[in-house]
Amino acid sequence: MSPSPSVDAHTRERIPVALLGATGTVGARLAQRLTDHPWFELVEVAASERSEGSRLGERVAPDAALHPRIAGLTLRSPTADFRSHLILSALPSGAARAVEAELAARGHLVVSNASAYRDDPRVPLIVPEVNADHLALLDTVREAAAGEAVPAPGGGIVTNPNCAVAGLMPAVAPLHRRFGIERLIVTTLQAISGAGRPGPSAIDLVDNVVPYIGGEEDKIAAEPAKILGRVEGDRIVPVPLSISATATRVPVLHGHLESVSVQLSTPASPDEARRAWREFRAPEAVAQLPSSPERVVEIADHPDRPQPRLDRDRGSGMTVTVGRIRPCPVQTLRFLVLSHNLERGAAGAAILNAELAVADGRVRSQL
Amino acid sequence: MSPSPSVDAHTRERIPVALLGATGTVGARLAQRLTDHPWFELVEVAASERSEGSRLGERVAPDAALHPRIAGLTLRSPTADFRSHLILSALPSGAARAVEAELAARGHLVVSNASAYRDDPRVPLIVPEVNADHLALLDTVREAAAGEAVPAPGGGIVTNPNCAVAGLMPAVAPLHRRFGIERLIVTTLQAISGAGRPGPSAIDLVDNVVPYIGGEEDKIAAEPAKILGRVEGDRIVPVPLSISATATRVPVLHGHLESVSVQLSTPASPDEARRAWREFRAPEAVAQLPSSPERVVEIADHPDRPQPRLDRDRGSGMTVTVGRIRPCPVQTLRFLVLSHNLERGAAGAAILNAELAVADGRVRSQL
Amino acid sequence: MSPSPSVDAHTRERIPVALLGATGTVGARLAQRLTDHPWFELVEVAASERSEGSRLGERVAPDAALHPRIAGLTLRSPTADFRSHLILSALPSGAARAVEAELAARGHLVVSNASAYRDDPRVPLIVPEVNADHLALLDTVREAAAGEAVPAPGGGIVTNPNCAVAGLMPAVAPLHRRFGIERLIVTTLQAISGAGRPGPSAIDLVDNVVPYIGGEEDKIAAEPAKILGRVEGDRIVPVPLSISATATRVPVLHGHLESVSVQLSTPASPDEARRAWREFRAPEAVAQLPSSPERVVEIADHPDRPQPRLDRDRGSGMTVTVGRIRPCPVQTLRFLVLSHNLERGAAGAAILNAELAVADGRVRSQL
Amino acid sequence: MSPSPSVDAHTRERIPVALLGATGTVGARLAQRLTDHPWFELVEVAASERSEGSRLGERVAPDAALHPRIAGLTLRSPTADFRSHLILSALPSGAARAVEAELAARGHLVVSNASAYRDDPRVPLIVPEVNADHLALLDTVREAAAGEAVPAPGGGIVTNPNCAVAGLMPAVAPLHRRFGIERLIVTTLQAISGAGRPGPSAIDLVDNVVPYIGGEEDKIAAEPAKILGRVEGDRIVPVPLSISATATRVPVLHGHLESVSVQLSTPASPDEARRAWREFRAPEAVAQLPSSPERVVEIADHPDRPQPRLDRDRGSGMTVTVGRIRPCPVQTLRFLVLSHNLERGAAGAAILNAELAVADGRVRSQL
Repeated sequence: MSPSPSVDAHTRERIPVALLGATGTVGARLAQRLTDHPWFELVEVAASERSEGSRLGERVAPDAALHPRIAGLTLRSPTADFRSHLILSALPSGAARAVEAELAARGHLVVSNASAYRDDPRVPLIVPEVNADHLALLDTVREAAAGEAVPAPGGGIVTNPNCAVAGLMPAVAPLHRRFGIERLIVTTLQAISGAGRPGPSAIDLVDNVVPYIGGEEDKIAAEPAKILGRVEGDRIVPVPLSISATATRVPVLHGHLESVSVQLSTPASPDEARRAWREFRAPEAVAQLPSSPERVVEIADHPDRPQPRLDRDRGSGMTVTVGRIRPCPVQTLRFLVLSHNLERGAAGAAILNAELAVADGRVRSQL
Repeated sequence: MSPSPSVDAHTRERIPVALLGATGTVGARLAQRLTDHPWFELVEVAASERSEGSRLGERVAPDAALHPRIAGLTLRSPTADFRSHLILSALPSGAARAVEAELAARGHLVVSNASAYRDDPRVPLIVPEVNADHLALLDTVREAAAGEAVPAPGGGIVTNPNCAVAGLMPAVAPLHRRFGIERLIVTTLQAISGAGRPGPSAIDLVDNVVPYIGGEEDKIAAEPAKILGRVEGDRIVPVPLSISATATRVPVLHGHLESVSVQLSTPASPDEARRAWREFRAPEAVAQLPSSPERVVEIADHPDRPQPRLDRDRGSGMTVTVGRIRPCPVQTLRFLVLSHNLERGAAGAAILNAELAVADGRVRSQL
Repeated sequence: MSPSPSVDAHTRERIPVALLGATGTVGARLAQRLTDHPWFELVEVAASERSEGSRLGERVAPDAALHPRIAGLTLRSPTADFRSHLILSALPSGAARAVEAELAARGHLVVSNASAYRDDPRVPLIVPEVNADHLALLDTVREAAAGEAVPAPGGGIVTNPNCAVAGLMPAVAPLHRRFGIERLIVTTLQAISGAGRPGPSAIDLVDNVVPYIGGEEDKIAAEPAKILGRVEGDRIVPVPLSISATATRVPVLHGHLESVSVQLSTPASPDEARRAWREFRAPEAVAQLPSSPERVVEIADHPDRPQPRLDRDRGSGMTVTVGRIRPCPVQTLRFLVLSHNLERGAAGAAILNAELAVADGRVRSQL
Repeated sequence: MSPSPSVDAHTRERIPVALLGATGTVGARLAQRLTDHPWFELVEVAASERSEGSRLGERVAPDAALHPRIAGLTLRSPTADFRSHLILSALPSGAARAVEAELAARGHLVVSNASAYRDDPRVPLIVPEVNADHLALLDTVREAAAGEAVPAPGGGIVTNPNCAVAGLMPAVAPLHRRFGIERLIVTTLQAISGAGRPGPSAIDLVDNVVPYIGGEEDKIAAEPAKILGRVEGDRIVPVPLSISATATRVPVLHGHLESVSVQLSTPASPDEARRAWREFRAPEAVAQLPSSPERVVEIADHPDRPQPRLDRDRGSGMTVTVGRIRPCPVQTLRFLVLSHNLERGAAGAAILNAELAVADGRVRSQL
């Protein structure tokens, strides 16, 4: 990554942004985070066909609490002609597949929270503190396969991970770099807001846990190896890493808690792991992005932490909390990780990726 | 185990029982289960000193819903002279240590839910479907160490496991017998009632999970190896078995959910595991005990099961439900287990042990 | 009401029943209550067009736990030709309006939980313990207005109240009969299952209350006056009764709690009210219906009762619990009422009405 | 009230404050609100005897998240010699009775959240936006009754209302001033944090409501009439006002919701009530206090508001939200009120009273 040092974030004009899937839970969070953003100005919004022509404010859930200027924006089709070069996408995965490729082919830089392209080895899947260098994939000139739309110059798709993976990576990456992770077993206790609206019925989450989230375990098993991988030519080569995931939904509003056991290549004690986390730093260019938290990982020392309600908002939801770090009698270490699924896990992740793209000189004001 | 075939449960007089720790959450459940019990009649109750002399009904939580006859019993001291030979104990572990040994030394058979003696290799820790034969330890004549009270003839202590272990064993034992379990990693999502009253503050479990239960993980790591072990002389020799446990408390009333990954000695597919569970049977003498459920283990086929609220009451809380049986990319298999923590995990477990002791000819009507 | 004494419920053949709206929350409860019903046999099921042709078991929520015979019934259209004379309807109110009138015109007796005809003065709105005599409206021969379908002989519609009203009436009727109720102010705390599936999103009921239930307050204000009214010719004349209702949704699974203040015509003390409730009896013919609870109203003496989780299941969900009976500084008395919204408030209410119709000699085996 | 206009809050030195009952839920909130307070500096803390000598940080719940400087303060006895003239008290009511009178007799100004003196007609019970003028009671020289401690000059006790009343008054006062309130019926749905720690057991508030809060209803019935009353000589004469209150505890973390019906002396429509609320203004001197919210009352227009989780944090928890304003068929109007029980209802209320005392020239830096 080569951040352009001449860019002065604080004096330049704000960059116009279009937001797709603006009416959902993640879309509304994106709209909130964009409201007073120092670099971005949300000027275009889109959602599914049936919302087209409505004001955004009429189509979001009443808890969204949008700024009046943003609530007043008129919803367009996700395939409209957008004047913003930068497009943030919170589309459902099905819709995202066709729309995002088309917009990239028109030259837009699409920073997407959707899962549609995460497993495409030619599309960067980025957690800026971990693999900002994967952005370089955008420079590859791609040959179009039959019937495939390829990005126009300056266009492309950048994705962020699934919410449970996004919360896991800041805990996993420092261990992997220092000790190597060979195997990982994780059980997640995921918050309701991770399902978006309407999400599960309240009937199912009173006095109950639902031990299944469709598609989630496969994403948790696959995405980390890609994020920890390296660029070779026009694609990412993942690291070898076996992950076994069990995903459950618990009666918590926000905050995914993950119970992790890892097998390390080089043995490490809990104290050595603590040191790895404490010394973990984002690359300098990433640390200076507006949505970068002061600390990527914090360690909770109290034996009954991290807890979703008490720890999810650290670093405006962008700091991940690790706790209960113990030797594992079966593998090397076990610990718990807590992250805000809508911030570190979705909206904040996408914004951070968009900021990274700006710092890397990849974003223009207009198409 | 040699059940006395001449015992006819349905015609004999009911056996008087004393209940210690009757005012707590598990104590109240025991009192409920004893209300219409075909073999037992609750005639004596005891609790801590400060309740002595009160009626039981005045000292239990209002949700206990005791039968008027039982609510009217007067609370005695746990070290009173009880006329019942059989004593059920739901004492807190601290109180249990001294009291239970003393009562055994006086010749009582103490069937205890307390953790005080679970890790004593000379005291049976029993899940009747799994290791009813461990009762034979009661026949050992024990030399008293200095300052130690030893059971009088006919006296002794029988324990049941910690609630999370009690729910796990019916799932683990069939796999262990058929394929051998070498290593097990488990994350529990435990219900609030497992903490008894007052238990956690409601403040801590609204919109939250508490990822810590004091002492629980050590019990989960240690007890299964003893239960799966065998009697040698006057003690149990545990099997070799590495267990890594992480215990969390979730906003659920009853029902412990456990996310398990196992490494088997002999590889097995999910279908082979299913077969092992389906074919698992309690010994005939155990299967005929009044509190034995028709099925010890049931397999939930729906992909989002087992769920605490929907599955905890199967078999009057004595059936354990297994679901989501999948190959584990890191070990051999993974699955979820759900059990009712107050029934299979505590009160029902103790009653089943008491019934086992009766069937095994170890219980007299009077001291 | 003139129950035909020659009917011997216990020896006669079971009466076939068709169930409309079988796939919803109330429909599934009805199917459960019909499973071992001594008088009825569920033989036909129907739901909305898009479920037609499916097995019932494939279309209900997994927590419905239907009997395999019933789960195997094939869903028909709600306007199919049913052979059962008796039809239970749990249709959504919109669908109910046309369907129920048509079925009544074909000669079916439709016992409905839907709100479509509750406010029609010519259609009985019945709580059997209170106004079983309103069934006599079915004997009226009605002139068809233009474009209106009128019941064929033997046909008709019988409704039960809204769930909050159904729970309120057993508390209100005894006071009204003895002292006269002039004004009533009620705030309800209603359970989630009252909204059916999917009902509110889990996001909205974690750490929250939603103080609004569409249409509910108008129903609570209107229905009691009709139920307490009397038959005049072909219609019900309601009693004068001012009701002010505020309806809220709370994070409780089942059980509507209602905080009530009443202005009585004849002053009464809490003790006099208690006596009125204790002495309240269903008419003998109603008391002998299979779904009639032993006690219609129970009084909870503990100062912190009634509570939804602890009291909702009294009398298999058909007993209403009253508690905290106090003088009201503003009106005469205030108290709390708790009822099971799916039993006393919906499925149990409809079944009881159907049983009443049978006892009253209005139900044939076949159309 | 005569605020001293020469006081310049922003340039003067910060006023030292002692905090009693610092370890409880309200105490911890007070400590948080004092952390960056523009006028006050928390320099002394006290709690019950058994905490004496510990650091505050060791004795508060882990969710208190205190500033390190404040966490490091050493706990003293509540009757220690404090150098601060101003003392904030969050003591339990029993302890408060003796302690607060003694401290006032020593010349301290005690601003208390405890209920001990709220019903004493000689002690001001203040909601600054409503009855700041009641502070004048502090100027009365009081004759000591036998055995009674009377405040020394400059000393005295100022109280704020019970949390449910504190949230109700900003809604009630504007109606009372403009139309007169004669009678009020209220059912509260109160949050768990209102009970402090440990408060109710989590067992009691899963899938449940507890319709009883000891002592609460009497406070709600009595306090508003005093707050709306006027000073006559050395005491408050309450207004005539009949209040009927039913208090329930619901599974919500923060935010008391109250369902209110009022009988007005002068009839008013919902629109006239809305106008009264919109035009309601705190006295200018109060509006400029640092903890005064921009708006004392806000009106929620959406039909399903106010909701605890969505509305409790308005105005940093000091703004009260009114919604669902409708004519009442029994009295004049009904509506819902939502307030943050720990801010507007407790810690924020006490701080606002302390600020009022400062602005009114009643607080010195040292005893």
